[in-house]
Amino acid sequence: MFYFRCRKTGREYDIKEPRWQSEDGGLLDIIREKPLQSLDLQGDRPGLWKYRNAIPLEKDENILSFGEEKTPLIPFQYAGRDIWAKLEYFFVTGSFKDRGAAVLISKIKELGIERVVEDSSGNAGGSIAAYCAAAGIGCDIYVSEQASPAKLTQIAAYGARIHKIPGSRTNVTKAVMEAAKKQFYASHYWNPFFFEGTKTLAFELWEQLKGNVPDTLVLQAGHGTLIIGAWKGFTELKEAGLINKIPRIIAVQPVMCSPLYNRFYSVTDAQECVSGKTITEGIDIADPPRLDQLCDILKETGGGVIRVEDASVVKAMISAARKGLYIEPAAASVFAAVEQLQTKPDEKVVVTLTGHGLKATHRFQELL
Amino acid sequence: MFYFRCRKTGREYDIKEPRWQSEDGGLLDIIREKPLQSLDLQGDRPGLWKYRNAIPLEKDENILSFGEEKTPLIPFQYAGRDIWAKLEYFFVTGSFKDRGAAVLISKIKELGIERVVEDSSGNAGGSIAAYCAAAGIGCDIYVSEQASPAKLTQIAAYGARIHKIPGSRTNVTKAVMEAAKKQFYASHYWNPFFFEGTKTLAFELWEQLKGNVPDTLVLQAGHGTLIIGAWKGFTELKEAGLINKIPRIIAVQPVMCSPLYNRFYSVTDAQECVSGKTITEGIDIADPPRLDQLCDILKETGGGVIRVEDASVVKAMISAARKGLYIEPAAASVFAAVEQLQTKPDEKVVVTLTGHGLKATHRFQELL
Repeated sequence: MFYFRCRKTGREYDIKEPRWQSEDGGLLDIIREKPLQSLDLQGDRPGLWKYRNAIPLEKDENILSFGEEKTPLIPFQYAGRDIWAKLEYFFVTGSFKDRGAAVLISKIKELGIERVVEDSSGNAGGSIAAYCAAAGIGCDIYVSEQASPAKLTQIAAYGARIHKIPGSRTNVTKAVMEAAKKQFYASHYWNPFFFEGTKTLAFELWEQLKGNVPDTLVLQAGHGTLIIGAWKGFTELKEAGLINKIPRIIAVQPVMCSPLYNRFYSVTDAQECVSGKTITEGIDIADPPRLDQLCDILKETGGGVIRVEDASVVKAMISAARKGLYIEPAAASVFAAVEQLQTKPDEKVVVTLTGHGLKATHRFQELL
Repeated sequence: MFYFRCRKTGREYDIKEPRWQSEDGGLLDIIREKPLQSLDLQGDRPGLWKYRNAIPLEKDENILSFGEEKTPLIPFQYAGRDIWAKLEYFFVTGSFKDRGAAVLISKIKELGIERVVEDSSGNAGGSIAAYCAAAGIGCDIYVSEQASPAKLTQIAAYGARIHKIPGSRTNVTKAVMEAAKKQFYASHYWNPFFFEGTKTLAFELWEQLKGNVPDTLVLQAGHGTLIIGAWKGFTELKEAGLINKIPRIIAVQPVMCSPLYNRFYSVTDAQECVSGKTITEGIDIADPPRLDQLCDILKETGGGVIRVEDASVVKAMISAARKGLYIEPAAASVFAAVEQLQTKPDEKVVVTLTGHGLKATHRFQELL
């Protein structure tokens, strides 16, 4: 019912293979043999497993879950505009990355793999480590030296082995690629099972909006796992005839590191992106491998990229906290983007708040 | 339909008065004129406001909510025993205290009060500050110098004024009592509206267990706000004829500071309780004013008190994290208690995990 397809060559692979890239080193997509027919809501399963019939996992016994319900969607005012905030940090680790990790690690459990490697600026590492802990799977997490102390401590507590790599985020990527030659790579951006988890964001929004979809989604873009997931989920809903349009997707990147912006708008004289210079660490990725895919999605949905300055992110962090939402910098970046967003009257805008403020205590300590 | 009653004199007060203690300085209970008849589940309201008809708030327009759904209830094994863990940190601030704060601050908004004071070892302060931020109510939070850095930073981010009081937790109490002469005291243990929030724990468990109740509830006891709430909720369910027994309630306290244990078992040669000597800061309360009430509840339900050593709490923190649950020391104390708990075969035991591990990063850093 599902198979892998290489984005580079189009070559197909059995979904049962323990595989995170193609034999040609290409990125993989997961393709449904026939479109989703319906979304059977299984109300007795909590959270994203409610959409079990849309998720490519063979056996129920491999389902990993901490019992989370759907994340809150609340009306919120920012910069004088009425928008909706989806509190995507309502997961066991405090980050939306759990959506992807829940499905990816369940699949890795199904494959019988006993130890994995992963690289992360902090949140993905925490999510992979937590689900590996729940599954009894060992893991090695490669992180940059700049990762937040709260995130590093959390990853270590789950029992993961942490490898701190000096220098830029690119060095971390190199180190994990080397490690991935020996151990299975539970990558949140290479392995497409991760998007089978993040796509449930779309299903939840559809359910919470009672069968409607937002006009515009404003989403953080580092590796773009939330964008790919959201697009995939809405596409499946459309194929199933449950909705008739896919929301416009606006990606948010830091001015200091905005490779998607540069690619999407064909900025030829852009400075080289270097990570480690912005406070929005979760989206501080200089060379995300799925850039082309992300550009295709933005184009298809009529979206674009908004770049935000750290100063406006800081303003958003404080401003959100003063209304009761304590969120980390990358999460707050969407509010900074809303200030620049052009909308039509009555447009329904949803932003995702991706990580809890408790993950960025050191940042708030610097600010307050 | 509701009124206040003084626990000292029995004197009654109108529920509409802005009041947190009686004129005789006594503790107040909120009494229903007639028992709850039914629990009208209002599925379109998320989280605890689903039980709106059981909560004494006059107008819907005063409801404060971050849209949280019910907290997860998951099977968990600890020390070889099969129990259930209720993940009570699935609230916007990362602590169960939001249950109480949601109702208390909604009521304070209804009363038209514009500024409050509160004292806290950290979590209650965070919850009160977050809900005050959402309501546009100013607040002053009195905390001990030993409060965790992550919690203090969080409280400050919400815009609350923090007053750090040197010395023991008792000094904090003195300072806030003085402040409460001038500003309304949004106390999580004096003001009984707080328990109108924590009682929803019982409603959720009843719903999650499909109309059944646990045999035994193992709950943290500092000021005992969760115990009073749980007992109240189950009592209301029983009065409504929805259940026929109230779970046995086991309170958990640190060996270093266990006033409830001393009172309940009439320990005459107990050392004086001094706070600040245990890592379980959330339940490190030397002189909780509602001790008698807590003893009555434990007696009525056939429960008791279990004391835990810091060493066994540390073991529980690490052990839980190694299975994917990252929780703060006071939260982990219930696992340490389960090791000592005497149960009958097939007894259904539920423990509450009250605070996220991200609130105790410094503790995990010390341990790892």
